[in-house]
Amino acid sequence: MSEQPKKVKTGGLAGITAGKSAICTCGTGHGLNYRGYDIYDLAKNCEFEEVAHLLLIGHLPNKAELKEFKASLMSARHLSPVMRETLKLIPKDAHPMDMMRTGCSMLGCLESEKQELPKHFPDQLRVGIRLLGIFPSILLFWHHWHEDGRELDTSSNQDSIAGYFLEKLHNKEPKKLWVDAMNVSLILYAEHEFNASTFTSRVITATLSDIFSAISGAIGALRGPLHGGANEAAMELISQYKSPDEAETGLRQKLANKELVMGFGHRVYTTHDPRNVVIKEWSKKLAEDVGDSVLFPVSERIEKIMWDEKKLFPNLDFYSASAYHFMGIKTEYFTPIFIMSRITGWLAHIFEQRADNKLIRPSSEYTGPENQAFVPIEKR
Amino acid sequence: MSEQPKKVKTGGLAGITAGKSAICTCGTGHGLNYRGYDIYDLAKNCEFEEVAHLLLIGHLPNKAELKEFKASLMSARHLSPVMRETLKLIPKDAHPMDMMRTGCSMLGCLESEKQELPKHFPDQLRVGIRLLGIFPSILLFWHHWHEDGRELDTSSNQDSIAGYFLEKLHNKEPKKLWVDAMNVSLILYAEHEFNASTFTSRVITATLSDIFSAISGAIGALRGPLHGGANEAAMELISQYKSPDEAETGLRQKLANKELVMGFGHRVYTTHDPRNVVIKEWSKKLAEDVGDSVLFPVSERIEKIMWDEKKLFPNLDFYSASAYHFMGIKTEYFTPIFIMSRITGWLAHIFEQRADNKLIRPSSEYTGPENQAFVPIEKR
Repeated sequence: MSEQPKKVKTGGLAGITAGKSAICTCGTGHGLNYRGYDIYDLAKNCEFEEVAHLLLIGHLPNKAELKEFKASLMSARHLSPVMRETLKLIPKDAHPMDMMRTGCSMLGCLESEKQELPKHFPDQLRVGIRLLGIFPSILLFWHHWHEDGRELDTSSNQDSIAGYFLEKLHNKEPKKLWVDAMNVSLILYAEHEFNASTFTSRVITATLSDIFSAISGAIGALRGPLHGGANEAAMELISQYKSPDEAETGLRQKLANKELVMGFGHRVYTTHDPRNVVIKEWSKKLAEDVGDSVLFPVSERIEKIMWDEKKLFPNLDFYSASAYHFMGIKTEYFTPIFIMSRITGWLAHIFEQRADNKLIRPSSEYTGPENQAFVPIEKR
Repeated sequence: MSEQPKKVKTGGLAGITAGKSAICTCGTGHGLNYRGYDIYDLAKNCEFEEVAHLLLIGHLPNKAELKEFKASLMSARHLSPVMRETLKLIPKDAHPMDMMRTGCSMLGCLESEKQELPKHFPDQLRVGIRLLGIFPSILLFWHHWHEDGRELDTSSNQDSIAGYFLEKLHNKEPKKLWVDAMNVSLILYAEHEFNASTFTSRVITATLSDIFSAISGAIGALRGPLHGGANEAAMELISQYKSPDEAETGLRQKLANKELVMGFGHRVYTTHDPRNVVIKEWSKKLAEDVGDSVLFPVSERIEKIMWDEKKLFPNLDFYSASAYHFMGIKTEYFTPIFIMSRITGWLAHIFEQRADNKLIRPSSEYTGPENQAFVPIEKR
């Protein structure tokens, strides 16, 4: 190569700046901000759709803008006959993230994005809104088809993604407390700078590929237990124990065995995850509402031990697990819900990447053999 | 952040080392080598399956190993009833890369990879061979269903991917010259270090996600015209002209208009693409075989002008376009063929990433607003 590659000491591009972005600041010392707004203000005062508008369009909407944005999302919930047939073909025992990835990819076959390359993407907002609107329908169509043998009716008076999702999951008007909690959760999960799935979507976008490709790839990255899958792993951990004392004994055993405990620590936070204080408060409210006396106390005890023993703090995934559980959501759907939220961050980054694009193509440090003498197959 | 991010001057991670790898060296000064073997030795002496074995298993096979490897690939060609139904649902006017991405993703729902996280992947070679074997079947099932209304019979005596693909595309025993040319092309396209699609597959893999997710994402990246889509764009260019003189006039006009000309230059090569000399020779042989007197001379004239005027050299994509065309392959299938080859490189990198994994998670340089005062929606 003509340029001297800079050596990476830590690996995984940790601490390496891969590009400019005006969307998010996060990390110890910054807290977490979306387009300069503090996550605490957004989580306390906004519906998820306001935050989605902020990320996709660039500013917090006024009442008229929010009404129009919500209407466009409501009209993006429908499932075509071909999409319904596709979802029916995906087996009940498939991984829900594989199903979501396939639904997204198939939608790209049916409603492809119109591009005027290399610089014009007149269709990107339509595609973005369509995906943001349709993901709850994809998950719950597949869910009900296999659980109850019926096709989901996507019509609803719920004008929010949180309300629509909860109504269609439970087949009844959702409690206000649950809709509020789901809104907060979707806001907290919406965006997180150059995390692995967002970075995946930017790498794909930078080849000038389409949005469905970028989002399919991002779903695949989010699926991994070192990324989105962590909230499911946290649920598996806390649901193992019947009391805080039992949890303490079990956890100390895991730590002694050097087992990985999911839901703790974070690449960009070193002392605490600012989202944890918010989701923990909501998990507590939901615990009180359902009369829980096990899962929340178990979670708190695990938090305490992890800090005392390892100086590791819970990240957003840890108390999200119990919060979702209290709302009657199956553990396997935690990461699909993450998609419904993080799609907003992915889209913001895709739009931003396109506005000032350059192919993302790093180099590697070669560690293999040099100058291998070729031996014809007859002599091997 | 606790670490000071290194500033990127060039963008797109150009010249940044994103990790260690023992698979490939490329770039001006290195030529191109797969696991230390010179691409010229491999292209001249090997079948594609030998190179696939080198990339997936780590060494060039002896005769017995090659026979066994080919047998496993032949038995990986079949399409299940659900896969057939899925492919039928994908419309004829869908982008073939969207179809391939969806086929890959659906296969992940039907034949998911078994993982023993965080460190054991006992199923990865089975999944890799299955994908390498099935991609030609996926493309040609969809092709024939929409072109001739019939279901592809995946049984065949052809023991190579090149032979199987050409036989099933044209419904007849393929010429040896064509099989040889396709073998060379598949070898040349097989691997290229941390290119955008391979890097995508590593970013996804590093979350400990599964192979189907990594390959679906890689297909999405390869789809982009700045990456795999370039061979299709090259075909569109050369097929516009009826003679070298007409091509010269047209190309000079494009250059005067500052239009992007695809198939020239490369991020990691600065003086020439070592693969070009090989594929150009094969394109010439195929042109002679079919009696072409337009496309190859037009290509040569465009090559000359691009060098004279812009000092840009043809990359692998440029003469691949005419070579594929001479073998009766539709332009829209050029990039899907690229998948059938590059899947071997993707798999090698996925296996390598897993063997010494760390989450790939860079940072961004924040350029947006700071400390935005929150205004409630009523007052916006």
